[in-house]
Amino acid sequence: QIDSARLWGSIHETAQFGGTAKGGVRRLTLSAEDKQVRDWFRKACEDAGLEVHVDALGSQFGLRKGRDMSKPPVGIGSHLDTQPTGGKYDGILGTLGALEVIRTLNDAGIETEAPICVVNWTNEEGSRFAPAMMASAAYVGDFTTDDILSRKDAEGITVGQALDGIGYRGDKPVGFQKLGCFVELHIEQGPILEAEGKTIGVVDSGQGVLWYDGKISGFESHAGSTPMPLRRDALATLSEIVLAMEAIAKKHGPNAVGTIGEAVIANPSRNVIPGEIAFTMDCRSADGAIMDALDRDLRAAIAEIAARRKVEVKIDLVWRKPPTHFDPKLIAAVENAAKTLGYSSRRITSGAGHDACNLNTVMPAAMVFVPCKDGISHNELEDATQPDCAAGTNVLMHTVLAIAGV
Amino acid sequence: QIDSARLWGSIHETAQFGGTAKGGVRRLTLSAEDKQVRDWFRKACEDAGLEVHVDALGSQFGLRKGRDMSKPPVGIGSHLDTQPTGGKYDGILGTLGALEVIRTLNDAGIETEAPICVVNWTNEEGSRFAPAMMASAAYVGDFTTDDILSRKDAEGITVGQALDGIGYRGDKPVGFQKLGCFVELHIEQGPILEAEGKTIGVVDSGQGVLWYDGKISGFESHAGSTPMPLRRDALATLSEIVLAMEAIAKKHGPNAVGTIGEAVIANPSRNVIPGEIAFTMDCRSADGAIMDALDRDLRAAIAEIAARRKVEVKIDLVWRKPPTHFDPKLIAAVENAAKTLGYSSRRITSGAGHDACNLNTVMPAAMVFVPCKDGISHNELEDATQPDCAAGTNVLMHTVLAIAGV
Ligand SMILES: NC(=O)NCCC(=O)O
Ligand SMILES: NC(=O)NCCC(=O)O
Repeated sequence: QIDSARLWGSIHETAQFGGTAKGGVRRLTLSAEDKQVRDWFRKACEDAGLEVHVDALGSQFGLRKGRDMSKPPVGIGSHLDTQPTGGKYDGILGTLGALEVIRTLNDAGIETEAPICVVNWTNEEGSRFAPAMMASAAYVGDFTTDDILSRKDAEGITVGQALDGIGYRGDKPVGFQKLGCFVELHIEQGPILEAEGKTIGVVDSGQGVLWYDGKISGFESHAGSTPMPLRRDALATLSEIVLAMEAIAKKHGPNAVGTIGEAVIANPSRNVIPGEIAFTMDCRSADGAIMDALDRDLRAAIAEIAARRKVEVKIDLVWRKPPTHFDPKLIAAVENAAKTLGYSSRRITSGAGHDACNLNTVMPAAMVFVPCKDGISHNELEDATQPDCAAGTNVLMHTVLAIAGV
Repeated sequence: QIDSARLWGSIHETAQFGGTAKGGVRRLTLSAEDKQVRDWFRKACEDAGLEVHVDALGSQFGLRKGRDMSKPPVGIGSHLDTQPTGGKYDGILGTLGALEVIRTLNDAGIETEAPICVVNWTNEEGSRFAPAMMASAAYVGDFTTDDILSRKDAEGITVGQALDGIGYRGDKPVGFQKLGCFVELHIEQGPILEAEGKTIGVVDSGQGVLWYDGKISGFESHAGSTPMPLRRDALATLSEIVLAMEAIAKKHGPNAVGTIGEAVIANPSRNVIPGEIAFTMDCRSADGAIMDALDRDLRAAIAEIAARRKVEVKIDLVWRKPPTHFDPKLIAAVENAAKTLGYSSRRITSGAGHDACNLNTVMPAAMVFVPCKDGISHNELEDATQPDCAAGTNVLMHTVLAIAGV
C-alpha cells in the first residue's frame, strides 16, 4: 500500500507552482512555473535514488535499477504541465503517483526484476504548442525532434527557445531511454466512474483526435453604414461554423465531439464588421470511420457557408491521431490489480488524449483512471478525492510489480 | 473655389501619421500618432492666423475672427482619429476641408460677418474609448467632463491619463467655445452616392445607435472528454447571439443594422471548451421605434438562448444615441450651395454617427457627404477622389459664407 498522505502532500505542495486564486494551476509547458515544478521533481527523484536524465525535448526520465538490467524498464508517469486554467490533478496525479510508487518500493525494500522508469513528458496539454502529447509523439517517431523544436507558440517563441529559456534542453537524444511498456495513471476527466460509483477505470481505448487551424477572410467595414445584405462578416461566418460543428458532432454522437476553443478577431473594434478571424478546431471519436465522417461533413459545411457568405475560409489539418486500442495483456494486468486490491472497476474509453496513447503505437501500454468530481477537467475547479488518488496509485504499483516481477 | 491640390496635399501629408502598409491609417485617439497629427494641425491653424485653444477633453478649436464678434462663430470640422484599420478620409476630410476653407478665405481676403471656428473633436471613432463622438457629447452636456475623463480603454488607461500622456489635456473647460451652428463635411461611408452618380449628399438625418457590453459565462471543460449534451459552451452561445442579431436586423430592415465587432474568449486553448466571453454589440436605425424593437427582440433572443444553453449572459446598454434630424434651414443652405456650384446632389441619411449629430441637439447643424469608393469605410482600402473631396469642400465653404455672411 502506498502512503496516501505523502502522495496527497506532493500533489498539494507542487500545486503552488502556478497556483491560481480559484484553486487551480496555470503552468503552461516550458514556462517559469514549469521550471519550478521540474526542479522540484528532479530533486524528489534524486532523493528517491533515481538516476535522472533529460532528453532534447525536455522530458525527464528517472531510472530505478532492477535485478536484471538487460530487461527494458517498465515506464510509468504522465506530465506536470497544465492548461491556462487547469486543475491540480490532470497529469500531476500520474507523475507524482509514479514517484510515490518508487518511494513505497524503497521503503518496503522491494527490488524488481526489470528496472522501472518514471517519466514527466514535456507538453502533454498542447495548449501552448501544438500538437498535444508532443514529446511522447516524437519519442515514438511520429515527428522528428527538429520539427518539434521549431514549433511556435502564439508569441512566436519556438519549443527550442522555450527549452533554453528554462534550461531544460537536455543532453540526451529523444528515444535514448528504451522502455519495455508504459502504464499511466490519470483522472478520468469525464463523468462515468463517479456516476457509476466505480473507483478504478481500466482504460481499454482512447479517442482519435483531429486538430485544425482555420482562418476566415471576410471584409472589414462600417457597422453603421454597411447594409446587412452587403456584409462579408467574418464573425457571422465563424458563428455558423461553430454551430455546424456542434450539429455534426451531435449527429455522429454519442461517440463524437467537436469544439472550437480559440477564435481571435484581427483588429477588433465595436463599430467595425470583423474582417478576419483565426480559429482552431478539435474533433474526436474513438471510431476511425466516424473521424473520417466528421472531417468530411465539416469540410462540406464550411465550404457551403463560405460560398454563401462570399467569404474565404481556409482550414488546415495540423494533427491527426488515430483512435487507441491499448494492449490486452496490460489491460488485464490493470484489471487484475484492481480486483486483487478489492476496488470496484469497469472498462472505459478515454475521451482525452494521453502520452500512453502515443507509446501504445510502439510498445504495450495501458492506463488506470480514477474518478474526478462531476467529470470536470481543464478547469480550475477540477477535483478528486484523496482515497481515489491513493487507490489509483496502488493499482499502478501492483500492475508494475506484476509486469516488472519481484 | 478652394485649392484642390492643397487640400489633397494636406490629406496625404497627414496620412503618414499612423500610415499602414495597406495604404490606410492606424491612429487611435490620444495615441502617439494622434499627437503627431494634432501638432501638425495646430501649427497649420496658427499659420492660417487662427487662435487655437484646447479644451479639457483635448478637442482643438481654431478661431477666425469675424467683423461682428458678438455673433457666435460658425463651427466647421470633424475628427482626425481613426479606427485600428482605418482609412485616410473618415473625419480627416472634414477637418482638413475646414482648414482649407480658412486658407481659401485668407487667400481671397474674404472677411465674414460672424467668426468661423475650425474644430478637431477628440475620439469620434469610439474604438479605443466608448462612446463614439465622446468629446462632442460632453460638449452638448450628454456626459460630464469627469465622467468622460474616467472612461477606460482595453488596457485600463483612462481618457485623463491618455490626454496627459500626449500633453493634450487643454486648459479650457469643455463648452468654453460657444458655437452658433455646426456644419460637417464627411465621406458617405456607404454606397448610395456612388451608385447613383451624385457628387453631394445633403444629409438630412442620421441613424440612432445602441451600444452594449456583453459577457457570457458558461463553463470551461475538456474538449475531448465532455459529451456534447453536457456542455455549457460560451462560444456556441455567442454564435447563436451573432446569428440572432443578424436575423433581427434583417427582419427590421432595410432601415436597421446590427453588428458584433468585438468578442474575446478568456484563457483560450484548443482543447478547452470556452467558458467566458466578453463581447460588444452595435445596433442602429434611423427610426426610434425600430431601435426600441431591436433592443426588445435582441434581449428576448438572448434570454431564450441563455436559458436553453444553461449559460449566463449579461448585457449592459452603455450608450443610446437617438436618431438625428438635422436643421431644415441648414439643410437647405447645403442644398442651395451644391446647386449654385452646379454639383449633382440628393438628400441622404447617415448610417454612421458624427459629431454633428451631437451638436444638432443644442444648435442647428448639418452635414455634407461626398462619395467614397464602393461605400467602403472603417477599412484601410477606404478611398475617395480628389474632385469629389474638392467639391464637398467647396459646398462646405459656400454654406459657411451663406450662414456667416460676407
Ligand atoms: N489528458 C489531457 O487533458 N490531455 C490533453 C490533450 C487533449 O486530450 O486534448
Ligand atoms: N463616422 C464614423 O465612422 N463615426 C464613428 C462612429 C460610428 O458611427 O460608429
